[in-house]
Amino acid sequence: MHAISLSQARLPATLEIDVTDEYGQLRRQAIAAERALTLYLNKREIVTLMTLGADPEALVVGYLRNQGLLGERGDLQAVHVDWEVEAAAVVTRRLPEDLEARLSQRTVTTGCGQGTVFGRLLEVTSLTALPRTQLRQSVLYRMLDNLGAYNETYRSAGAVHGCALCRQDTVLDFVEDVGRHNAVDTLAGRQWLAQSDSDTADVFYTTGRLTSEMVLKVAQMGIAVLVSRSGVTQKGVELAQRFGVLLIARAKGRHFQAIHAEGRLDLDAMPARRPGDRR
Amino acid sequence: MHAISLSQARLPATLEIDVTDEYGQLRRQAIAAERALTLYLNKREIVTLMTLGADPEALVVGYLRNQGLLGERGDLQAVHVDWEVEAAAVVTRRLPEDLEARLSQRTVTTGCGQGTVFGRLLEVTSLTALPRTQLRQSVLYRMLDNLGAYNETYRSAGAVHGCALCRQDTVLDFVEDVGRHNAVDTLAGRQWLAQSDSDTADVFYTTGRLTSEMVLKVAQMGIAVLVSRSGVTQKGVELAQRFGVLLIARAKGRHFQAIHAEGRLDLDAMPARRPGDRR
Repeated sequence: MHAISLSQARLPATLEIDVTDEYGQLRRQAIAAERALTLYLNKREIVTLMTLGADPEALVVGYLRNQGLLGERGDLQAVHVDWEVEAAAVVTRRLPEDLEARLSQRTVTTGCGQGTVFGRLLEVTSLTALPRTQLRQSVLYRMLDNLGAYNETYRSAGAVHGCALCRQDTVLDFVEDVGRHNAVDTLAGRQWLAQSDSDTADVFYTTGRLTSEMVLKVAQMGIAVLVSRSGVTQKGVELAQRFGVLLIARAKGRHFQAIHAEGRLDLDAMPARRPGDRR
Repeated sequence: MHAISLSQARLPATLEIDVTDEYGQLRRQAIAAERALTLYLNKREIVTLMTLGADPEALVVGYLRNQGLLGERGDLQAVHVDWEVEAAAVVTRRLPEDLEARLSQRTVTTGCGQGTVFGRLLEVTSLTALPRTQLRQSVLYRMLDNLGAYNETYRSAGAVHGCALCRQDTVLDFVEDVGRHNAVDTLAGRQWLAQSDSDTADVFYTTGRLTSEMVLKVAQMGIAVLVSRSGVTQKGVELAQRFGVLLIARAKGRHFQAIHAEGRLDLDAMPARRPGDRR
């Protein structure tokens, strides 16, 4: 595995400001950082991302990967982030042949954060078939319990989204960012940079909504189960059907709404019915 | 005021799907619509928006306005949306001279929905100075109470953001969309198309987070008070300082956190302290 030159330009995720509360009291409040990072691929300006800055190298790599702008891992030579100039320079030996065509079309999606997918969102050809991953209700509940130990930034500052790579109920990796898609892309970037064959994720969790491009990005990561504490949109459901993604929406406490669950969800831990138990 | 040829291509905001709940019961669940709409300005493809489709004509006009791609109202000739081909055709007599330059740069923001601002996000030159709008705590509370009558789609389907134009505690207009920025732009588009001088809004409300481009877009609408039930980010606070926007974050129930409130917030309705009253 060849060496990629990587900077380590991580910055604190939160800072404190003064706010006036409803009692007229001045309080110190932690807020989420939000930084501009302009991405250059072989010196060509691609985009400016607004990010928390927690793992910018993985973010830009994952972003380029998910946009189809970066080919083989072996071609990647360097990823250098310099916050002084708010720039990320990515160097690769080979650029995709259709780079110009991809950059010429934009789809502004409904996602938080990376609301842009270059090329036509729904023209997905490179997707490999997804596994028909099964999920047990008891495993889902344990996974949601395990996730409770994360989302530090959200608890202190709010205004961020969290995403996690899980292997059944085990949380393999967790990232927060001001943009939900930054979090997705950072996870994808870490996964791709690490090239870990072991501990491969089979469940993706997000605090955000299951919109079209969330389903698309998770499918691109080869993951067939997508869990969210939020709701779904029409195109999210359509794409999940098309790619074979099991959606678990509104997963909070013991509640959830499973979509495309036929034969894949084992209801082995149904809660006892209690009045007022339903949302 | 010259006539603009406008289609009326509104579509239902929600549809129903089958979901399996935690009790293994199949239920009908309303979900938010999400549709692709490709925007053409004088036959030039600009962008594809993912939207609820509730008011597409106002959306594309507001989008173009907020991106600085549409000049005078008198130049606008037609806005025709055709869902059959998922296209919106906007015809104007005059295009901005720097159109190509604007389209060549992208900032992917942290906003839900329209996560793209053409041109450099922070290079704002055309902003007129904002009024130093005052806000009374009692007015804020009445406004929040009045807003309770809205957000239909959210209540039934979730997965949408709501935005409102208010004049003090009076709700003038309210829009929901799968993308928070679609909602902002739809309100801006309606305001601009109607050219209403009376009932001009002086408070903007959003369910979404106060990130950099939310503050930017609201400032572009000439509104100096921005209220959200969510939190703020670093650049949102920085831009609000720069533009003179009073931020009211985490406005839920009687709670809120005011930022840049010096001399502009009249605390005339402080709640009685109760234990457990603080978040």
